[in-house]
Amino acid sequence: MSLLVVGSVAYDGIETPFGKTDRILGGSATYISLASSYFAKKVNLVGVVGNDFADEDIELLKSREIDLEGLQIDNSGKTFFWKGKYHFDLNNRDTLDTQLNVFENFDPIIPESYKGAKYVALGNIEPSLQGKVLQQVNNPDFVVMDTMNLWIDITLDALKETLKGVDLLVINDSEARELADEPNLIKAADKVRAMGTKMLIIKKGEHGALLFTGEEIFSAPAYPVVDIFDPTGAGDSFLGGLLGWLDYTDDLSTTNLRKAVIFGSVMASFCVEKFGPERLKSLTEKEIYDRYREFRRLSQIPEVD
Amino acid sequence: MSLLVVGSVAYDGIETPFGKTDRILGGSATYISLASSYFAKKVNLVGVVGNDFADEDIELLKSREIDLEGLQIDNSGKTFFWKGKYHFDLNNRDTLDTQLNVFENFDPIIPESYKGAKYVALGNIEPSLQGKVLQQVNNPDFVVMDTMNLWIDITLDALKETLKGVDLLVINDSEARELADEPNLIKAADKVRAMGTKMLIIKKGEHGALLFTGEEIFSAPAYPVVDIFDPTGAGDSFLGGLLGWLDYTDDLSTTNLRKAVIFGSVMASFCVEKFGPERLKSLTEKEIYDRYREFRRLSQIPEVD
Repeated sequence: MSLLVVGSVAYDGIETPFGKTDRILGGSATYISLASSYFAKKVNLVGVVGNDFADEDIELLKSREIDLEGLQIDNSGKTFFWKGKYHFDLNNRDTLDTQLNVFENFDPIIPESYKGAKYVALGNIEPSLQGKVLQQVNNPDFVVMDTMNLWIDITLDALKETLKGVDLLVINDSEARELADEPNLIKAADKVRAMGTKMLIIKKGEHGALLFTGEEIFSAPAYPVVDIFDPTGAGDSFLGGLLGWLDYTDDLSTTNLRKAVIFGSVMASFCVEKFGPERLKSLTEKEIYDRYREFRRLSQIPEVD
Repeated sequence: MSLLVVGSVAYDGIETPFGKTDRILGGSATYISLASSYFAKKVNLVGVVGNDFADEDIELLKSREIDLEGLQIDNSGKTFFWKGKYHFDLNNRDTLDTQLNVFENFDPIIPESYKGAKYVALGNIEPSLQGKVLQQVNNPDFVVMDTMNLWIDITLDALKETLKGVDLLVINDSEARELADEPNLIKAADKVRAMGTKMLIIKKGEHGALLFTGEEIFSAPAYPVVDIFDPTGAGDSFLGGLLGWLDYTDDLSTTNLRKAVIFGSVMASFCVEKFGPERLKSLTEKEIYDRYREFRRLSQIPEVD
């Protein structure tokens, strides 16, 4: 199988209460690809970088066997740059700087060899660009999409249009409430699913995640991370782990979707332990499976007679 | 076994987005007693009511086989009255009126026949009064305590003193963060446990609850209630279901504590379905166990090889 990942590739400047970095590899496609590379046999990345993109970052992606045929190098400018500062509680952040650079004119062109992808991850980019990706691929089995409040605010129609071709939308709780205009998350989930996506995951940060398949609801716990070093990329790592597992197992049963949600949570829990994608560079299979089992223990409800 | 419940018995005026009631039976001891009565063999209630307390409410409590020898009837005034209005999202409420009435001079006197209680529930009252209860009982096996932001703000020293005699403190997430002065809930739990209570439960409303036993963390899901009619008493019902189960099974293993947390969650999920304690009047064993199994299904994580 092969997994297609489309999204941003960026440099981030990050400040958290625990440290600071002026420039570290980032972007939704980067985190999704890295996280999914621990499961998927082949990860094909589509994105754009500028003339300042470092060889070592190319090498890092290649070292995780991520295919870069679809990574456009636009020499007319620099790579997308984002700078942000997290508050003391790490749940909120301020954007200090956004330089779109070459990302402003990003046109996701899917190479021929990628078009047969069975699993597709639409990282958080403008919804009409996500839609353009879906027009180019040959009837994938499973499309997962991320989005953000900005697109709900300014491009709601395009978002709803793209949603019709999506199997699973992954958003956070505030986005779900805003998209559905409904404070109760369970009701909000019904309203969002009625917009077109078959399934929905609502990420709740330190409170875990909810999966709505239509048949059932699955409540996944959050890993009790004492020292969250840097939350950047956690949501994308979740999506990458989830879709990577689905691609690896090629099984869309509700039981396997539950496993996928936990593998997504596992990858997110690793991601936040260090700056940027640092922790996603060299995980072992044992670390990943051990943490999966920790998630199981954490939320195991004993049987009663 | 017998279970001792000390707390407020009150009348509430409640307004939610779905309805309004001018006067309905309420109070922490009421909800704890009703919820625990489905499990505990004998529930002994200590509280105070005034000259307006209705015979039918006495009958209701008696119908659930709650012993009222410890319920003081103070004819000098009226029963504690609280009036509140819930916001649209039901997570916040405004207190519109508080009339302490006879509750202002409440002195929890534990009848001789109650003093041998193995399980004790200290409902949310002033911490020094909770401490006075502990001075009167004969070395109980397990003491559970509730409290609120008000007492953290104005009687912190008394609260910490009482906490030393408590096995399990049950508070919500904002209270835990305030008590520990720490935004990360996992770290906050460590700091609160260092104050004296052996175990801690942090209730997170629509996000479930966390149990910290010292040996392990258990993450319990919330029941996906679509129509929360009235959240009043949910926390007390949680405590009642939890302690009722422990009294019934007389088993303080971590496995059984997990079950107790879920039975607490079950009773809370029923409580919010109707106004006040209405739904807790006539549950069946089948309803309770069926919902327990729904909680299990909701958060079941499949094994991986």
